[in-house]
Amino acid sequence: MDDTTWKAGLEDVIAARSAITAVDGGAGRLYYRGYEIADVVERLAFEEATALLWFGEAPDPDAAAAFRARLAATRGLPAEVFAALRTLPRDCHPLDALRTGISAAAAHDPDARASDRDANLRKACRLMTLVPETVGAWHRIRTGREPVPARTDLGHAAYVLSLLEGREPTPDVARVLDVVLTLHADHELNASTFAARVAVATLADLHAAIVAAIATLKGPRHGGANDDVLAMLREIEDPARAEAFVADRLDVRAGLSRAERADPRARMPGFGHRVYRVDDARARVLRGLAQSMAAATGRERLFEVAERVYAAVKARTGLPVNVDFFSAVVYDALGIAPDLCTSIFAIGRVAGWCAHALEQYADNRLIRPRADYVGSPPRTFAVTV
Amino acid sequence: MDDTTWKAGLEDVIAARSAITAVDGGAGRLYYRGYEIADVVERLAFEEATALLWFGEAPDPDAAAAFRARLAATRGLPAEVFAALRTLPRDCHPLDALRTGISAAAAHDPDARASDRDANLRKACRLMTLVPETVGAWHRIRTGREPVPARTDLGHAAYVLSLLEGREPTPDVARVLDVVLTLHADHELNASTFAARVAVATLADLHAAIVAAIATLKGPRHGGANDDVLAMLREIEDPARAEAFVADRLDVRAGLSRAERADPRARMPGFGHRVYRVDDARARVLRGLAQSMAAATGRERLFEVAERVYAAVKARTGLPVNVDFFSAVVYDALGIAPDLCTSIFAIGRVAGWCAHALEQYADNRLIRPRADYVGSPPRTFAVTV
Repeated sequence: MDDTTWKAGLEDVIAARSAITAVDGGAGRLYYRGYEIADVVERLAFEEATALLWFGEAPDPDAAAAFRARLAATRGLPAEVFAALRTLPRDCHPLDALRTGISAAAAHDPDARASDRDANLRKACRLMTLVPETVGAWHRIRTGREPVPARTDLGHAAYVLSLLEGREPTPDVARVLDVVLTLHADHELNASTFAARVAVATLADLHAAIVAAIATLKGPRHGGANDDVLAMLREIEDPARAEAFVADRLDVRAGLSRAERADPRARMPGFGHRVYRVDDARARVLRGLAQSMAAATGRERLFEVAERVYAAVKARTGLPVNVDFFSAVVYDALGIAPDLCTSIFAIGRVAGWCAHALEQYADNRLIRPRADYVGSPPRTFAVTV
Repeated sequence: MDDTTWKAGLEDVIAARSAITAVDGGAGRLYYRGYEIADVVERLAFEEATALLWFGEAPDPDAAAAFRARLAATRGLPAEVFAALRTLPRDCHPLDALRTGISAAAAHDPDARASDRDANLRKACRLMTLVPETVGAWHRIRTGREPVPARTDLGHAAYVLSLLEGREPTPDVARVLDVVLTLHADHELNASTFAARVAVATLADLHAAIVAAIATLKGPRHGGANDDVLAMLREIEDPARAEAFVADRLDVRAGLSRAERADPRARMPGFGHRVYRVDDARARVLRGLAQSMAAATGRERLFEVAERVYAAVKARTGLPVNVDFFSAVVYDALGIAPDLCTSIFAIGRVAGWCAHALEQYADNRLIRPRADYVGSPPRTFAVTV
């Protein structure tokens, strides 16, 4: 444990063996079980992509139908979870409400005392539904409305949208969210997924692991950046102001101390990534979606702001754009409230959290690293006089 | 990232720099800020040990009094947290209730929108109180009783015990819990503390980090083992049966496959540790406490069972005893319900979780490791015929 082995933030350190997702940071490529992400979103619906992540192969049509039916059969938020959400203040951040609702749901799960693989698969299916239903229920509560009753005749993405506003979306709109959820479904050992694996490695139950993941997703260095991008684009408002805004932000940043730069408000949300050195494949798909959705919903101005910010940041820093940036424009076009963006992220990523949890349970070892101790040498308390 | 760099479970991999706690696994020694743990429990009350962990130095008498007063001023569980707990089923595991209550409390924290160091210290003080008050409130709810009103005239350990049964403990009994809490207060990068640092590293808020830690503590490979030890000792019941019980358990275990041995029911709870190769200093202190508490409360028989199990496991495996083993006997003597043991662990460990979170916030880098990808090579979907 000498100094040379210490890598801040575990950068490039291998913490698990995994057969789920491969990330090629240099080429900006992402593969789910060997399939390139652009192929996955073109060929599979979110439910099928989830089955691919969990079971290793894309389901054939019969298996896909069975898996959809299995997910749909879990719909209907337990009344007790809704009651727990009702105890929260209306200004509670949606991700805090989600975390609290899932934590409470653990106690109501019919398999709460079971931990075999079949029980964990049943829990994983319930969590796929619980996450969007809790997000939807909290959004209804905080806007003074009743929750939307469960229905089993909609695909997953359409159901997610119906839970927010109570209206069934058009197939085109549902398909946009379907693509966004699939793009967010997994990303190897990102911080929230790693947190889920750390919890699983103690043999904590699946609900506990998902709660740990949601807790970790909240930070602006991770999923929380999603909320911040839209706030920034709306602040800029006028495409003509984008260049100056970026210049100002980057100039201010250049003059800051290291500690000040660590403040998320001094960062450019939506740019930079621990693993990618170039724009990633997800961002390319999202940029196209953002453009077409902006045109379809009369939001060309916000998209133009995004394009100008993108160009200005690229020109000045060379930083790659990440998945958060253009997805914010898509969420806006879908009518999703800015502070719900990270919750939508969770609705997609829970597929990957469960995939990694199942993989960790199947071949587990406690994840327990060491610290490089740099504190006081051994000492004794002064003798009292 | 070749194979040779992969260490399952991050064993011996350094994941953070820390000046808080040093663990010498070969010698069985533990130091808080340079002071040996046996000296710390002899010289400091739990509140002072907490100040030592957070601020780096043991407080002088004036600073200690001020810190106690600061902690005491946070007492009184928000009614909304109590309401959230009331939505849980009575058979909810206390640690699930604790996790849910702290998650809900995040939304009610007066500093919910602040993240500077002073705000985080205020939150840390509140969490020191919130954890035991939530544990106590849930225990009262599940046993059909009202919560115990807050009072500020008791030290921390006495207050914790009063929250469970509504009675002020004798100073001797309070001192026993005080020692137990201090022994559990920190242990470097154990899984739950590491989970807290992973959450903090995304710049998630302190409550979110503590929720991630509680979620991770639940597993039987970590804090959950605490509950299991007492269940085992009670199952053995007769000291004369201890040797045969251990022999049976170890023989069964020897005949199991690797996967079957991973089942916590096939393990000997309270023995073995990732870092220690010999009995650790905490176990030595706890063994003495267990003996004197057993004598004081007429529980000599349970202590004798524990002693015989300890001797039998040592003789047959050489495994070190860990902090969970004799603490279970102490908890029993304190009249604490077996399924509350891990919650008591949390009441102590929250001091360390907060210390590590504050250290991580002060010099942060996203904790984001990589996976060793062992899945399918790149492939494409079959062309539909």
